[in-house]
Amino acid sequence: MTDFTWTRAQFHMPDRVIYLDGNSLGPLPLAASDRMQSMLTEEWGEKLITGWNDCGWMQMPRDLGDRIGRLIGAEAGHVVVGDTLSIKVYQALAAALRLRPDRRVILSDSGNFPSDLYMAEGLIKLLGPEYELRVVAPEEVGDAITDDVAVTMITEVDYRTGRRHDMADLTRRAHAVGALTVWDLAHSAGALPVDLAGCGADFAVGCTYKYINAGPGAPAFIYVAPRHADQAEPVLSGWLGHDSPFAFEPSYRAGAGIERMRVGTPPVLQLAALESALDVWDKVDMADLRARSLALTDRFIAGVEAACPQLRLQTPRDYALRGSQVSFAFDDGYAAMQALIARGVIGDFRAPNIMRFGVTPLYIGEAEIDSAVAILADILDNQLWDTPQFQMRKAVT
Amino acid sequence: MTDFTWTRAQFHMPDRVIYLDGNSLGPLPLAASDRMQSMLTEEWGEKLITGWNDCGWMQMPRDLGDRIGRLIGAEAGHVVVGDTLSIKVYQALAAALRLRPDRRVILSDSGNFPSDLYMAEGLIKLLGPEYELRVVAPEEVGDAITDDVAVTMITEVDYRTGRRHDMADLTRRAHAVGALTVWDLAHSAGALPVDLAGCGADFAVGCTYKYINAGPGAPAFIYVAPRHADQAEPVLSGWLGHDSPFAFEPSYRAGAGIERMRVGTPPVLQLAALESALDVWDKVDMADLRARSLALTDRFIAGVEAACPQLRLQTPRDYALRGSQVSFAFDDGYAAMQALIARGVIGDFRAPNIMRFGVTPLYIGEAEIDSAVAILADILDNQLWDTPQFQMRKAVT
Repeated sequence: MTDFTWTRAQFHMPDRVIYLDGNSLGPLPLAASDRMQSMLTEEWGEKLITGWNDCGWMQMPRDLGDRIGRLIGAEAGHVVVGDTLSIKVYQALAAALRLRPDRRVILSDSGNFPSDLYMAEGLIKLLGPEYELRVVAPEEVGDAITDDVAVTMITEVDYRTGRRHDMADLTRRAHAVGALTVWDLAHSAGALPVDLAGCGADFAVGCTYKYINAGPGAPAFIYVAPRHADQAEPVLSGWLGHDSPFAFEPSYRAGAGIERMRVGTPPVLQLAALESALDVWDKVDMADLRARSLALTDRFIAGVEAACPQLRLQTPRDYALRGSQVSFAFDDGYAAMQALIARGVIGDFRAPNIMRFGVTPLYIGEAEIDSAVAILADILDNQLWDTPQFQMRKAVT
Repeated sequence: MTDFTWTRAQFHMPDRVIYLDGNSLGPLPLAASDRMQSMLTEEWGEKLITGWNDCGWMQMPRDLGDRIGRLIGAEAGHVVVGDTLSIKVYQALAAALRLRPDRRVILSDSGNFPSDLYMAEGLIKLLGPEYELRVVAPEEVGDAITDDVAVTMITEVDYRTGRRHDMADLTRRAHAVGALTVWDLAHSAGALPVDLAGCGADFAVGCTYKYINAGPGAPAFIYVAPRHADQAEPVLSGWLGHDSPFAFEPSYRAGAGIERMRVGTPPVLQLAALESALDVWDKVDMADLRARSLALTDRFIAGVEAACPQLRLQTPRDYALRGSQVSFAFDDGYAAMQALIARGVIGDFRAPNIMRFGVTPLYIGEAEIDSAVAILADILDNQLWDTPQFQMRKAVT
């Protein structure tokens, strides 16, 4: 049984803040400060170049990949950490296309995170105009998986609405017509149990700065199913994905399995923070997490709907169709979110009109949910958002 | 006048270590520990998601890019930090090829770092077999720049031999036949003055974990000449290179100038360490650095040649042809290097037979050079390298 009182005590939370934005950037694990100090002074400072072997730096992307693998139902040895999510999308997509050389269509949906679509566009620029990025509405994805599709590129949980795709069903449909799947787990990893192996997913990618709490700019990860691992061709063929990186051979030979999805030198300092974040996750049972996430999201939805009739729920009520965030539409949502933040309730806003609230059982409980609802109701009832200060926009990630 | 006593005091150096491997991984800037603590506890911990604006995280890749820009002679506003060097090579190469759509040849040399060649191979896999990676010997590059070459991809200072190309001459020759240039500054940035703008370089890339001292896995940088900045097409078209990343538009529109060479979320923790490293560099005059680097490398070469006739100098004696490392060939170089490391003199080894020594005036002086020579001579004179312990190989980056 997961001890959520313990997990909560592992994070730093600023005074008077109710943090409902862990789906954008998770909070600081308290142990990260000491871990980073030891990384700097005992490892980098004292070991210098020998840290690559003596401190296991070179192995970290694999070790940490396996610990993430447990959260997402990956087979051991098939996840590696590195780069950014956009880069990992590109890698997975390019490899999947090369496994289906007779097909030309990448299928995605309009709820996908734009960067995934942009990376596909960039890839197609190189591949040639005979390739097509076909984007349909989220609810049309299933029927759109036709036998000309090479690969589906779907984010399991929609970053705006919190709507969740059925990974098992869509993967089955893709395989039924000979297509492959790339799953983006940005809003799944650490948000809910994922069963990549059970669903038969082909490729998956995700980031670690959201629900996993590894810090701003924390690296991404990539999963390749064991059946593809030695066939998937890396087009970002960097030296650390080479079969023998330190032989410095003149030509590329792909490393075994997931090793070939490495590219350049791993970001060791960011990996130290990820390590501290995973030390907490190692004590979390994903079924417990899901039960608590659903209870808290239910509570938030019920509270907001009772107190704030101006807001329209965008997240499906059906558990099977939901991640761990709740989104409401409100035309003045940007200003309302700024007013909320000024009161210490941090969520975020996504154009054109979505107020997003991440629900993260590791450090959020009933008291925060209830306070957030009360403050939101006060702001809406009294139109406290309607000031020039809150309506002036600036970029927030 | 640069105060090298001061710069030396800014780094942590382990007891009884003579560190001649700063060309592989620079040492810890002492200020990095405090800076990282403030990044973790005051910024990430306290500001959470608002750190992207309130702490300037989103701007760091540009601010730090400009500070690196001074070291490499770039125009202000034309360098951005992010990703790994392999990724930046790919970006620069792809953009350069798209600026020369009628040509099919990437010209490089066999002294280039293998990862650069591997990334070019991967790019060609997508572009098609009509493209060619043409690799010639380092001394043949000039004559090999023929009018079918789209882009030359050259590492200015050879990672094994320390041989330096003539950037001004090769760039001029490339432009004379309508070709573009991608310069890899991995062993140049922080090693010697570089004059990208003066040489008319088109693209340049480099890393920050070597001479710049930003730590293991520190991010890379990319330069695009002002005349190309708004024309260069990003094929790794990630959201942070979009003209309006937070509008979440469905299609990619490249950002202005160097902004389009951003891809995903910047590695903010690694950037904090880079900031501390650049705080030292801000006080360094590159002409002073070069003068001291040449004096120290001369001293090392003279000392080794006098005391160790078994070693054959691989680095050119001519100043114009030299970076800030010295390489010697020795058939038992691997074991000899292990024996040196066991005595506290840390250099490194590159297959098949190169002993590499990085000379870094920020924290190395005459005393270290003389001691390293004496220990090396003792090891060679007494064949202290000839033990099974030192001959057993393991991977070292």
